Amino acid sequence: MGVDGSAAFRYTRLMNSDAPLSDQAAVDTIRALSMDAVQKANSGHPGTPMSLAPLGWTLYSKVMRFDPARPDWAGRDRFVLSCGHASMLQYALLHLGGFDLSVDDIKAFRQWHSKTPGHPENFETPGIETTTGPLGQGVGNAVGMAMAAEHLAARFGGELFDQRIWCIASDGDLMEGVASEAASIAGHLGLGRLTVFWDDNSITIDGRTDIAFTEDVVARFASYGWHTLSVDDGNDMAALEAAAKAALADPRPTFVRVKTIIGFPAPNKQDTPKAHGSPLGDDEIAATKAAMGWTLPPFEVPPEVTAMRAQLQEQGAKLRAEWEKKLTASPHRAAIEGALSGALPELSLPAFEASEKGMATRAASGKVIMALSEQLEGLVGGSADLTGSNKTAITGGSFTREQSDVPRTAHWGVREHGMGAAINGMALFGGLRPFGATFLIFSDYCRPSIRLAALMKLPVMYVFSHDSIGLGEDGPTHQPVEQLAALRAIPGFAVFRPADANEVRECWKAMVGLEGPSCIVTTRQSVPTLDRTAFASEAGVHRGAYAVRDDEGAEVVLIGTGSELQLAVAAGERLASEGKKVRVVSVPCWQLFDAQDLAYREALIPANLPAVVVEAGIRQGWDRYVGPRSAFVTLEHFGASASYETLYEEFGITADAVYERAKALLG
Amino acid sequence: MGVDGSAAFRYTRLMNSDAPLSDQAAVDTIRALSMDAVQKANSGHPGTPMSLAPLGWTLYSKVMRFDPARPDWAGRDRFVLSCGHASMLQYALLHLGGFDLSVDDIKAFRQWHSKTPGHPENFETPGIETTTGPLGQGVGNAVGMAMAAEHLAARFGGELFDQRIWCIASDGDLMEGVASEAASIAGHLGLGRLTVFWDDNSITIDGRTDIAFTEDVVARFASYGWHTLSVDDGNDMAALEAAAKAALADPRPTFVRVKTIIGFPAPNKQDTPKAHGSPLGDDEIAATKAAMGWTLPPFEVPPEVTAMRAQLQEQGAKLRAEWEKKLTASPHRAAIEGALSGALPELSLPAFEASEKGMATRAASGKVIMALSEQLEGLVGGSADLTGSNKTAITGGSFTREQSDVPRTAHWGVREHGMGAAINGMALFGGLRPFGATFLIFSDYCRPSIRLAALMKLPVMYVFSHDSIGLGEDGPTHQPVEQLAALRAIPGFAVFRPADANEVRECWKAMVGLEGPSCIVTTRQSVPTLDRTAFASEAGVHRGAYAVRDDEGAEVVLIGTGSELQLAVAAGERLASEGKKVRVVSVPCWQLFDAQDLAYREALIPANLPAVVVEAGIRQGWDRYVGPRSAFVTLEHFGASASYETLYEEFGITADAVYERAKALLG
Repeated sequence: MGVDGSAAFRYTRLMNSDAPLSDQAAVDTIRALSMDAVQKANSGHPGTPMSLAPLGWTLYSKVMRFDPARPDWAGRDRFVLSCGHASMLQYALLHLGGFDLSVDDIKAFRQWHSKTPGHPENFETPGIETTTGPLGQGVGNAVGMAMAAEHLAARFGGELFDQRIWCIASDGDLMEGVASEAASIAGHLGLGRLTVFWDDNSITIDGRTDIAFTEDVVARFASYGWHTLSVDDGNDMAALEAAAKAALADPRPTFVRVKTIIGFPAPNKQDTPKAHGSPLGDDEIAATKAAMGWTLPPFEVPPEVTAMRAQLQEQGAKLRAEWEKKLTASPHRAAIEGALSGALPELSLPAFEASEKGMATRAASGKVIMALSEQLEGLVGGSADLTGSNKTAITGGSFTREQSDVPRTAHWGVREHGMGAAINGMALFGGLRPFGATFLIFSDYCRPSIRLAALMKLPVMYVFSHDSIGLGEDGPTHQPVEQLAALRAIPGFAVFRPADANEVRECWKAMVGLEGPSCIVTTRQSVPTLDRTAFASEAGVHRGAYAVRDDEGAEVVLIGTGSELQLAVAAGERLASEGKKVRVVSVPCWQLFDAQDLAYREALIPANLPAVVVEAGIRQGWDRYVGPRSAFVTLEHFGASASYETLYEEFGITADAVYERAKALLG
Repeated sequence: MGVDGSAAFRYTRLMNSDAPLSDQAAVDTIRALSMDAVQKANSGHPGTPMSLAPLGWTLYSKVMRFDPARPDWAGRDRFVLSCGHASMLQYALLHLGGFDLSVDDIKAFRQWHSKTPGHPENFETPGIETTTGPLGQGVGNAVGMAMAAEHLAARFGGELFDQRIWCIASDGDLMEGVASEAASIAGHLGLGRLTVFWDDNSITIDGRTDIAFTEDVVARFASYGWHTLSVDDGNDMAALEAAAKAALADPRPTFVRVKTIIGFPAPNKQDTPKAHGSPLGDDEIAATKAAMGWTLPPFEVPPEVTAMRAQLQEQGAKLRAEWEKKLTASPHRAAIEGALSGALPELSLPAFEASEKGMATRAASGKVIMALSEQLEGLVGGSADLTGSNKTAITGGSFTREQSDVPRTAHWGVREHGMGAAINGMALFGGLRPFGATFLIFSDYCRPSIRLAALMKLPVMYVFSHDSIGLGEDGPTHQPVEQLAALRAIPGFAVFRPADANEVRECWKAMVGLEGPSCIVTTRQSVPTLDRTAFASEAGVHRGAYAVRDDEGAEVVLIGTGSELQLAVAAGERLASEGKKVRVVSVPCWQLFDAQDLAYREALIPANLPAVVVEAGIRQGWDRYVGPRSAFVTLEHFGASASYETLYEEFGITADAVYERAKALLG
């Protein structure tokens, strides 16, 4: 093997000359594995894993606390590779770090059912903390993780909750608005646990970064209130370690610019976009290995590196044992274990009296979330500057720079996307139940984070108020028309649209019990609170759809959600007054309904009965739930600025319209 | 009237003491109208129009060039109120500026069909340049407008195209990532035409901005490369005018921090969130008017202010006449008028030879867009750092800081949302046809801008490549599954998914002919180029859906789009070989198909025939297009990292699956 003191080997040694030889061997192993794996897969990104190998190895071997045998150990530091396309860096580090990821796994890079998919997926690979790839998201996740750690430290003590968050971000990550928003939050809150290393390699897919990105990134992070550092040579492990130590010592979040050479030390492709997103090719790999003095066959790991793997396993077991000793001694032990398990207490939530005048579902939601917050200490989150509108005030303290109370309310500012990425990070950290809130229309602003929550099955919750033209005068820029359909489209994202105050409570109950992400969509305007002695119990919410009125021998099914259920109810009353037999169905959640057995679904909305669907949104997706004799009182265009009463009337979303369509279908 | 030199009147005169009395009267009129209109509507945002009145009036009376009689005059400066909730500021300014917006219109603030909706809507109100409300978008629009002006100036000369862009942004705008992205682009390009005034009022809906926003915003803009200024008193019109002049003189984009007091001079509610989003109430309005020395009845405008309205009309007519004289004398006159009209030349676009091996639709799209760029000089845009992947290289120069060539290619960097907002601004400016590009999955990142394009009916175009699990190894973070449905959900947004190279050409033809926004969704992988002597002509694209194969007396309809049409074709061949009569329908665009007459639609996909839909995405929305005897070969879950051949097979998106479903339906 060429890992010796020869001249060829020294070629790569831009790091400090007294670095232990084994570090050099580890770094070269990461580089070799990255080249080999991308080449074998014939796709992937070799350049960044190669240039970031010294930084990655510094973190895994000298800085971070983890136990590779127990990647879920709550006391571990968190590592986030925001530039997920550099996944081979992380796979190589997981292997070298002693995790359950073998060289054979690395050989299966990017293949069906492997532990080494194209981008890091936390649900596929032990030791991966979050799923990254969509740029900027990892930075936001890291911010949320740091916030979660602050919350838990305030609740249970910093002895056990002193975790640090280490994130590597690319140019691309830092161009994304979501990362800007999250970085501003982190600076505002002074999240000292957080360190972001910027891989400043000056190369982007389309060429050199200066074709699009000439801002002073370090100055920008300083403007957010971050502690900023620069490491001028990304191969200098001593400097990287010193930066990490300096980050540990500073109360602010730390931003470290690390100048790297993408694809280093590939003699012909380093420092070019060619090293970014394609295999280097056999010739360049051979030339690179020759330059490194690397003579091992592909995928072979030097014995001294394998030996370090064992050392890190041993060290990790020790760290965890120490932490567990502290946990055993902690007066909070039971509470901590409860929080980490995610177990729910028995909940006591408000009931709402029947009332024709009723109340806005956002108002009911506000009462329920307040009650929840009193019973779930881990309920943490807040609104993107619409607390009073979304009705998301909860009990407890706020996240602030100088923490005095256990922080629970997050004042996200007008940063929906940063909020979405951060609550994902909170859920990933564990031990709490995070939520975010904004108007339904602005779910569009955080959609990429919602999608990742669904992909990762994270139990994050959203409150989306002002859910239709019912918000009135703010007009079409604020009136969601297609957002319900667009959110329901995300696989595994449960969209709840309650029709009255008591459905609101049941929706919340369902949401806090879910393993995956969800949202509750609420009205600005009042809706009647149904008299449940006349209508069926709101417990039906848990089946996703249920009949609130069900005449024996129903001839027609009227289907409504949210504020439009009352229109179906009123139309049903009118039909009944004419002797028709009517079933009125409330559909608070497609996803729960889809999970019911076929018999329930077919019995509730039989394909052979005529059906009318009423919802103040687009029709898209509703056809699936009804038979061929159906009609839709929906909205296929944008709204307008006027009172909501005017809009419902002018756009024909009325009980009369439901009645007329039903009459026409009944013939 | 109280507009005199009395002590009470002086209360509001924080502006320089030698400001002309008529300016004070105008500012007070704006404040009075804003209070009155919000009060009458019983909803809206009075505080910001009041505090920004001096800035708005400075711009409209002393800085900007416009002709109120011709709000579409191409030579005008552009004004963007990014904080659209302050709409009453703009309505008052339009009235005072001499536009076709009366006091009666202001009285109808936020009412059905008024010219004064809750947020500014460019399609409702003469003189409104863009529809704002969703925060951050206006800043991005302004950046795009400045880029459009640069393009036109380079093409036709700066004599005629010397327009300036003036934007007012709130704290909320500047917290949004989209504004950060756009600001970084503007700094990078040195867009000296652009000035953004930051309304630094320290108040946000949830309280004081320092609960969420403590970054050094001015330093941040400096880090992007902007010229930065500060005006410490937002009532100081001389200082505001001086800042505007300084902006005019600097080659960089200018950022002006303007310290204001929200709701000024309301004695009890100024400088509190109470002045933000609710009517002040009769008592506070009375107290405010008393403090202003304002004695006119609600909605009355002092005669001297009305006189200024006439002056601005006269001045505007003169400015426009001068510009039109220059236009008449310009050697580019015909070309300019052509560009501004948006008229298309006869287009000659590539045809593609039939081939079993075929080509990726992104590759065909690359050839078509290159040809288009050679024939449409106004085709301007580019990719968010995926030019080679999206295949969006066009002829001509690039946008750079030191312009040498007519700029056409925009290197957006990894800033999809900033790109979306900017191309909206380009389209609003007029005279060019802008486009943006990224992977289909990242359409989620720019969705709020796409929605606004649809609401405004802007002819922006998107290229979304890598359109399904067909992208393979990059895995589920990069594989769109629900994005087709989510984009089709946006009213008025035309989503094109061509099935082969010749459909690609026809889709582009359709797109450049549309008045509204659209996207073309293309494959990474190769698909066969159909032999159009055996299959129907690709001209059918223009009907949105058409039969590529149509056996006499068809018994079953197989429906596919994009890369899955080939599966429908193959299944059809197998069924035909067994003696079945088959129709195979390609559906490149729902929106165009929806616009066909009922007879065409019902004849193409008759409700009484069994149908199988195949698309590598979710089923949502497809049920609407088929009768009750239908089956769906779709994908209701996220993808995975593996070769695309493996994924199609493992997920059952195959010709065999289509065949089996059809057989089952045929019984």
